[in-house]
Amino acid sequence: MTRQRIGFIGTGIMGAPMARNLLRAGYPLTVHSRTRSRAQALLDEGAHWADTPRDLAHANDIIITCVTDTPDVQAVLLGPAGVIQAAREELICIDMSTISPSETRKIGEILAGQGITLLDAPVSGGQIGAIEAKLSIMMGGPAEVVAQVRPIMETLGRTVTHCGPLGFGQTTKLANQVMVIHTIMSVAEGLAFAERAGLDLETTLKVTTAGAAGSHSLKVLGPKVVAGDLKPAFMVDLQQKDLRLVLEHAEQIGQPLPGAALVKQLFAVLQAQGRGRDGTHALIDVLRQLAGRNP
Amino acid sequence: MTRQRIGFIGTGIMGAPMARNLLRAGYPLTVHSRTRSRAQALLDEGAHWADTPRDLAHANDIIITCVTDTPDVQAVLLGPAGVIQAAREELICIDMSTISPSETRKIGEILAGQGITLLDAPVSGGQIGAIEAKLSIMMGGPAEVVAQVRPIMETLGRTVTHCGPLGFGQTTKLANQVMVIHTIMSVAEGLAFAERAGLDLETTLKVTTAGAAGSHSLKVLGPKVVAGDLKPAFMVDLQQKDLRLVLEHAEQIGQPLPGAALVKQLFAVLQAQGRGRDGTHALIDVLRQLAGRNP
Repeated sequence: MTRQRIGFIGTGIMGAPMARNLLRAGYPLTVHSRTRSRAQALLDEGAHWADTPRDLAHANDIIITCVTDTPDVQAVLLGPAGVIQAAREELICIDMSTISPSETRKIGEILAGQGITLLDAPVSGGQIGAIEAKLSIMMGGPAEVVAQVRPIMETLGRTVTHCGPLGFGQTTKLANQVMVIHTIMSVAEGLAFAERAGLDLETTLKVTTAGAAGSHSLKVLGPKVVAGDLKPAFMVDLQQKDLRLVLEHAEQIGQPLPGAALVKQLFAVLQAQGRGRDGTHALIDVLRQLAGRNP
Repeated sequence: MTRQRIGFIGTGIMGAPMARNLLRAGYPLTVHSRTRSRAQALLDEGAHWADTPRDLAHANDIIITCVTDTPDVQAVLLGPAGVIQAAREELICIDMSTISPSETRKIGEILAGQGITLLDAPVSGGQIGAIEAKLSIMMGGPAEVVAQVRPIMETLGRTVTHCGPLGFGQTTKLANQVMVIHTIMSVAEGLAFAERAGLDLETTLKVTTAGAAGSHSLKVLGPKVVAGDLKPAFMVDLQQKDLRLVLEHAEQIGQPLPGAALVKQLFAVLQAQGRGRDGTHALIDVLRQLAGRNP
């Protein structure tokens, strides 16, 4: 069976393991990254290198982007050395970054003008999910194109869901992030309260995790908080980027989110203290500071 | 084997099924309730009736209280027809209501002055947990007395945890409630955002429930929201009572909880609209109203 040739842009904390899973599944793979050294391990494992997104698009039929934010996607897809410069009908772009849903639609329209189809496919599941190919992938775009690339997506994730037209993958991801940040708040305020009240935190965790208070965040981040390990599962800076996208989109659709706005302000305390690269569960330190304790 | 005689005060939505489980386990049971008719089913099943908490305490060695709020516990334990009027050394009171931790300690001191031992043992798991004897029971009090009544508690719940001295069961329950209300907020803001953004809610639920956004509340309440079923699993009025206890205790220990305070204000919108008996997941209607939609 001839595998589609894939070009992969962005070999960061998420992109690198995803590209590796494609390589291991036997897809001919060419990569491009802002910093070539970050792609070296993949090149050693058999990936090819392209100097620009345009070069990458010349040699491949499927382009996957996994970069940080909206301007990064715009640059690699629409810029002077971007994918659009190699436009042709059969080209499909799959953006797996988390970016603005409305900007995704605008980028899609510009690409469509050159015959290129854009799909959005942001992911949930973190670095571990990327490494173990257990991501949840939320896709937007025409059903027939989503179906066409589904085998590729299933190489990267455990669940691949078609959420609607272009942009709906991103919107679903943002809804997911709204939910996530409140479960992080749940861990932070709940454990800060317990700690300040003099409760034994391991006992508290045991009692709460199994019951009505239970959440994925409590299960994964609760023990890290109790152990005093604030290394990132997901970084405050990236959470704030996602929360900015959430609140921008919420404003566009006319949906006030007082809770999400509050959590964003509390995360901003950590950023103001130079702790943007801590894990999101460092939010408990903000609560500790509110109670007069130094972090 | 001779079973301890148990007196049970409060045969409401939680107390009645708990008393029934004791009866079925073979404990000789006498009940008292503000309204006798609410205990009739238990009497038909073999429970005895006592006209006052004092009478109940005269005839039993273990007194369990499961009433609504701090003043109710004070009345049945310390009032003129209360348990304290039948004081004797071997009497053990187990308060399974959710009330103030600091008032619990005060009540315990007064009872101790008459030789009576008080334990606190609030529960999590709701009416279904009470019916199915799957409650999580959080106990405070002297370890040897907690050990002594453990078989009784294990008749009512799946996990029985000794959280510390008197009051620590209540404090653990309040920490649990802090965590719970943020997961309800997670469901409300996440689904309000998704709905307003035009996402398919069933797809959104499916994608989010299994991943990093997952929580017990999302799993249980999410489908109810999507089905438009706002009947209570837990009522707004009771949640607000618990949140009042949370914020009172938080103030006593000097732990600001800006998130919990915000959620309490949003629940207050429902109460102001006469919807205190709706389920807590009706919180999504407040978000809908903020977006200009009528409930």
